[in-house]
Order: sequence, then structure tokens, then C-alpha cells
Amino acid sequence: MKSAILSVGTELLFGQIQNTNSVYLSRQLNLLGIDVLYHHGVGDNPNRLKKLLQSVLNEVDLVITTGGLGPTQDDLTKEVIAEVMGSTLVLHQPSLYGIQEAFRKMNRTMTENNKKQAYLPSEATIFLNLQGTAPGFALEREGKRVLCLPGPPREMEAMFEQQAKPYLQSLSQDIIYHRMIRTFGMGESQVETRLLSVINHQVDPTIATYAKEGETAIRVASKRKTLEEARSAVEETIEKIKMQIGPYIYSTEDQELLQVVGDMLMTGKISLSCAESCTGGLFAGQITSIPGISQIFDRGIVAYSNQSKIEELKVSVPTLEKHGAVSQQTANEMAYGLFDKTGSQLCISVTGIAGPEGGTPEKPVGLVYIAILFKGVLYEKSIQSRNVSRNYIRNYTVLSMLNEIRQILLND
Amino acid sequence: MKSAILSVGTELLFGQIQNTNSVYLSRQLNLLGIDVLYHHGVGDNPNRLKKLLQSVLNEVDLVITTGGLGPTQDDLTKEVIAEVMGSTLVLHQPSLYGIQEAFRKMNRTMTENNKKQAYLPSEATIFLNLQGTAPGFALEREGKRVLCLPGPPREMEAMFEQQAKPYLQSLSQDIIYHRMIRTFGMGESQVETRLLSVINHQVDPTIATYAKEGETAIRVASKRKTLEEARSAVEETIEKIKMQIGPYIYSTEDQELLQVVGDMLMTGKISLSCAESCTGGLFAGQITSIPGISQIFDRGIVAYSNQSKIEELKVSVPTLEKHGAVSQQTANEMAYGLFDKTGSQLCISVTGIAGPEGGTPEKPVGLVYIAILFKGVLYEKSIQSRNVSRNYIRNYTVLSMLNEIRQILLND
Repeated sequence: MKSAILSVGTELLFGQIQNTNSVYLSRQLNLLGIDVLYHHGVGDNPNRLKKLLQSVLNEVDLVITTGGLGPTQDDLTKEVIAEVMGSTLVLHQPSLYGIQEAFRKMNRTMTENNKKQAYLPSEATIFLNLQGTAPGFALEREGKRVLCLPGPPREMEAMFEQQAKPYLQSLSQDIIYHRMIRTFGMGESQVETRLLSVINHQVDPTIATYAKEGETAIRVASKRKTLEEARSAVEETIEKIKMQIGPYIYSTEDQELLQVVGDMLMTGKISLSCAESCTGGLFAGQITSIPGISQIFDRGIVAYSNQSKIEELKVSVPTLEKHGAVSQQTANEMAYGLFDKTGSQLCISVTGIAGPEGGTPEKPVGLVYIAILFKGVLYEKSIQSRNVSRNYIRNYTVLSMLNEIRQILLND
Repeated sequence: MKSAILSVGTELLFGQIQNTNSVYLSRQLNLLGIDVLYHHGVGDNPNRLKKLLQSVLNEVDLVITTGGLGPTQDDLTKEVIAEVMGSTLVLHQPSLYGIQEAFRKMNRTMTENNKKQAYLPSEATIFLNLQGTAPGFALEREGKRVLCLPGPPREMEAMFEQQAKPYLQSLSQDIIYHRMIRTFGMGESQVETRLLSVINHQVDPTIATYAKEGETAIRVASKRKTLEEARSAVEETIEKIKMQIGPYIYSTEDQELLQVVGDMLMTGKISLSCAESCTGGLFAGQITSIPGISQIFDRGIVAYSNQSKIEELKVSVPTLEKHGAVSQQTANEMAYGLFDKTGSQLCISVTGIAGPEGGTPEKPVGLVYIAILFKGVLYEKSIQSRNVSRNYIRNYTVLSMLNEIRQILLND
């Protein structure tokens, strides 16, 4: 099946936002075995949208639109699709009810224009929006299909995953099965080099690598007649990959490192506290994003000033004076001080130079010290992050902290 | 002048990379007063590229292509443009010399296929590539123009800034000036309703609203003969908007709420500490993402367990027993306890139910209590966030905390 992605929204044409929807949908469609031939973007202009949609439908079997489903007067994607596909919009009661419910939950008054979002093409397969108010839909005519999804990425991705994907899967004959392997600690080209022997003799499953912030993901996909065949081919390839780079792999199920480590801690009922300087609460913020983590997470100390390191964590003044706030010694004392006040089974601390200022030749921006106290043993780790930006260094530091915990628990 | 941006490269259609070129060029073209009507993306496929280019040239006066200028056989953008515009490629000696020079500098041997990059349309205005090997060009025919730029963002941006931009400036007459207003506390449809009187009688400047997570942005843009005219028209409209929704506006310069509040705190040299339960360090994590914030940020206490609320912040056991950990009383005691240990001028605390579990009919998921102690005065605030997801509630809570600080400092 040949497809095109059509993004609607004047803000795209002003360059105000990145079109992350096209990237997400391109990956998802390719995984489903659907070729993406075009990306198109057009403003909130019904005439141009109509002309573009008509011409795209001459070229491909499937068009996925995003955006232009809001309650305001310039949101006209639905109206144009209905016109081009020869359909009419009618009030869809369950959607109206859903919108009313959403407003009730928000304690906000529903204005008249919000009702517009409940009008949908009469013949369409409706996709409910569980994250917002605008429903989506799929509309078919003479073998051509238009899928209409909302613009906000969170709403669009949830709707695609839960409703549009199953709809598209039901149209295809071959089965594609894929798994995403997640690794931390190696760059993309390094992973590729190490996997060369596996990649070179491979037609199906296909192997593709993707660089993410500080990590590399590997997609293994197989297209076969049955799910069983595809799955066993993928699993065989995963075993070969494990033989090459096993220790760097933290998930073969596309889980986030955060979730993997959170599960290990919760399963082992290992109580946790953290003391952060350079990450300034990001580590605690990530840990506490996991539902149910209150079972094991006690507290976090964001010891940003030297004074707070001394008062909260009993870091000694001589240590700060002799080795500096950014040193392995300070990290170690932070971990010990944290353990003294919490008694948590795993105490982790971090101090480093996130930049952009504050670097020196001896201690450049991106230098970070981590200390972990677990079962009476102190684990020390220093890392030198790439100096891409303050945010990059802080995020990479949090991933490194999680990965250190993972390795210590694995060896436990 | 009406334009379209045409990105060439199969990697885009696989979702392997973000199309940052479209964002950059859209901003630049709009600043030059050139309307961007379309974004198009197509793979390294000469037939589809040709067809698309022909049809786009029927719609607009200017097409800017990026990508497909490499030395390999599937790089065919130039060849297709020459064919569509009725031109032929000829060897451009200065470009050949430039490519040879680039290889000499890299200490690499120039292969025969690199010569391909020096073949350019005979009538074109050539743009030299000072960052790489592929030259770009502008080609005009019967009032239609195609600008051909390389794909790598660094090369493309340098070539645009130094050569394509002056070329375009020499063609254009009108100037567009725009500003982005940022608001917090109202939904998009609510903003639109409140601005109806301004929007309805307005042709230029144009006013458009955009929903972001928990906030609404308003773009005001004017197209005039001079920058002065456009700017004063936009400023006049901003004043009208302020009269309608002034208290909700936190920036008329497209700043983030975080940055606005960070600047207020740093300018006022107001020392800050925070005590977080439901946000679990997110607030501190955001605050510490601001470079230089160590001037005023002392520390954060992530008091997740009840035990830590008692030990770190002296929240009383009777308060926890009578009112619960999620209550205004607990938030207040957290703020007082934080002030006692830090003496920070502004102490902010937060406790709430981030879900997905833990809600009751009296205290549903999304209920959050904030307390701020500033100059001896306690400010209380309870909010009921939409129960979209744990992450949404936590992020919305952090925005609400920032907005509370903003309003208190404004009234100071």
C-alpha cells in the first residue's frame, strides 16, 4: 500500500513548530509495511487543502491527515475531507457525549463552538479521542482511504496506537512483526560496526539502527505469511545481536530505561533515595513519573547550593574546599549523608558541571560524578558527557544514573 | 510572493530524521515577507520529484528544494530541476575548483563521481558551498524561480544566510512582522471567544490561536510596505488583546513561562527553595534547567513519603492524620518547614494526586494544593487539573506553580 502524510496547520508554514507527527507516522507506517511516498504540509486554507488532497489521492491509496480538527472557525480539515470523499458531516452522539464529559471533568464550560468537533462523516469509522476533545476517523471510497487524526502529538499518537493501527493492520495481508532493542552506552556507528556480520547476511528480518539522545535503538522486523514465522525469525536475529552487544542491551521489548530500572527496583522492593546537584531534581522527577513508585521511593534532596550540601547531606567543608563541589569525594559524601538520614537500601548521588558556564581545563563542562551506596558497598562512576547543551548533559546524566543502578542490580 | 519548500530524501519518508530544514526556511521566508503555502517531502525518486515539482510550480512563484545534491547516483534533484525548467547542466569551473580544494583540505582523494557536483544549470545564479562540496543555485524561467540548496542543515543554513537570502531580498517588496503572545489559564476556545470582537474586525494584522499543553498562544502578524508600519500595526493589536485577557498573558515575546519566572526571580535576586510531593522533583528540575539559576536557587526537597514530610519539613503527624498528605494544611506546613530550614525569600510547596491511582470522590486525581511563603505572607492555591495522564497532571502542576509565583511577584 502506498501512502502520503498530509499535515494541516498554518503554524507549520510559519516554522513555529517541528512537524514531529510526520516522523512518528512515517516510522509507524513503515513498520506496518506501508510505503510512505510523500510528506505534505498545508495551512488552514480549505481551498488549497482540497486541491492538494485531491491530487494526493490520485497518487496513493492512503492519506493520513493530522491537524485542523479544533473547535475554531479556521479548523476545516474534516469539512474538506468530507467534501472530497463525497460524504457529509452528521452529529455523532457518542463523540458529543465524550466532549461533554471531558469538559465536565475539567470543570470548564463547554462553548457552542466545541460542538463542531462532534460532527463527523456519516460513513466513517470513528476513532475516539481519549486524550482530548477532537475525534478522528477513517473514510473509504473506491479503494482510497483517508485517515483523519488530531494535531497535538500526544492525542495523535494515542489515537494511532490504539485505533488507527489496528484499522490499518486489518487491511494488510502480510504480517509484519517487529521488535525494538534498546541499548545504552554505544553510539549508532559503533553499534552498526559491531553488528556488521549480522546485518550483512540478512534480507529478512531487516535490521535498522536509530540514534536517540545518548542511546541507540535497533529495529528488527520480519514480513512473513504468518505471525509465528515472523516472530521466530525476529527472535533468532535478536539472539545473534545479543551475542555481539549483550551487555549494552537494556530492553528487547522497546521499554524505556526508566521503566526497566523502575521495575527492577519495585520487583526487588528496594527502597530508594537520591541526592542531586547538577541534575537539580530531574532524576527524582523521572523516577516519580512511574506510577506506583511511592512503594519504594522515599525522598530526594536537590542540594544545589554548597550550603545545602553541608546542611542536608553533611558534606564536609574541607572536602568542598579541597576537592570542590564537583568531585568524586563530594559525590561519595552526598551518598553517605543521604543514607544516614534515610536508611534507604539504595542511595544515589550526583554532582557535575552542566554548563554552559563553570567549566575549566581540568573539569570541563559535561564532567559528572555519580556515587551509589547499595548493601553497604559504595560504587563510584565518573562520566564525561558530550557538551551538546545544558539539557543534553542533564538528560544524559539521568540516563547514566539509571544505567549504573541497572548494572549494579544485575550483578547483585 | 508565494512559495513552497520541497525536501528531497528517502530518509525523511522513513522517519529517520526530523525535517529541521523546513522549519528554518519557513521562518526565514516569512521574515522576508514571502508566504510559505506548502511543505512537500519526496524520496530520491526522479519521476515523483519531477511530477511534484511541475505541479508545485503551477501553484507558487518560488520553490526552494533541499537535499539530493550528493555525489551518488540516486542524488538527482539538480537533473530534475534542469529538466523541468528547460535548462541543461554544464561543468561550472569555479565549483569544480572549490570541490577539489575541499578534498585537498580534508586530505581525501576526490573520486570521479564527485565531479558530478560541479555540473550546474547553464543559466543559474550559483551559490558556492563554503561548508561542504555541493553548490546550490537559483534558476528563473517566466517569472517562476527554483532555489536549489544542499540537504545537510549546516551547509543549507550557511548558504541561505550568505547567498540565497540576499538573492531573495532583491526580489521582494512587502515585509511581514509577527509576535507571539503566550497565555496560561485559559483554553483555546475560551481565548477565541474572549477575543472575538478583536478578531472579527481584523484583516491585517491577522490573529491566530494555538493550543499547547495547558496553555494557549496567540500569533499576531502584519504584512506591510515597511517594517515600521507592520510593527506598529501589530503592537496596536497586542494592546487590544491585552485589554481583553491581560492577566492571562505572561509574554508578548514568545518566551516560555519558565524563562519569564526565572528572569523575574534572578532580576529581583529573590532566593528560592521548593518542597515537592506529587511533582517529585519536576519543578526543581525545570528551575535548574535555567543557566545561572544557582545565583538564587538554594535547594529542593522531594518529600515523597510521609516519613520524609515529617523529617525534612516538620509536617505534623496530626495534620497528616486529620487532613491527609494531600491537603492545603499539609502544603502550608511544608512551606513553613522549608522556610525554617532554608530562610529562602520565596518558599514554594506542592502536594497532590497525580494518579492514575489514589483518587477518591472527595479528592479526585488531578487535585493539587500549592503554598507559597513570600515576605512573611502565605499564599494558598488549589487547582483541579484535567485528568489526562500522570505526566500531564505533573507538568500542568509545574506550570501552575510558575504562574502563581509570577502573579505574586507582579503584585509585589
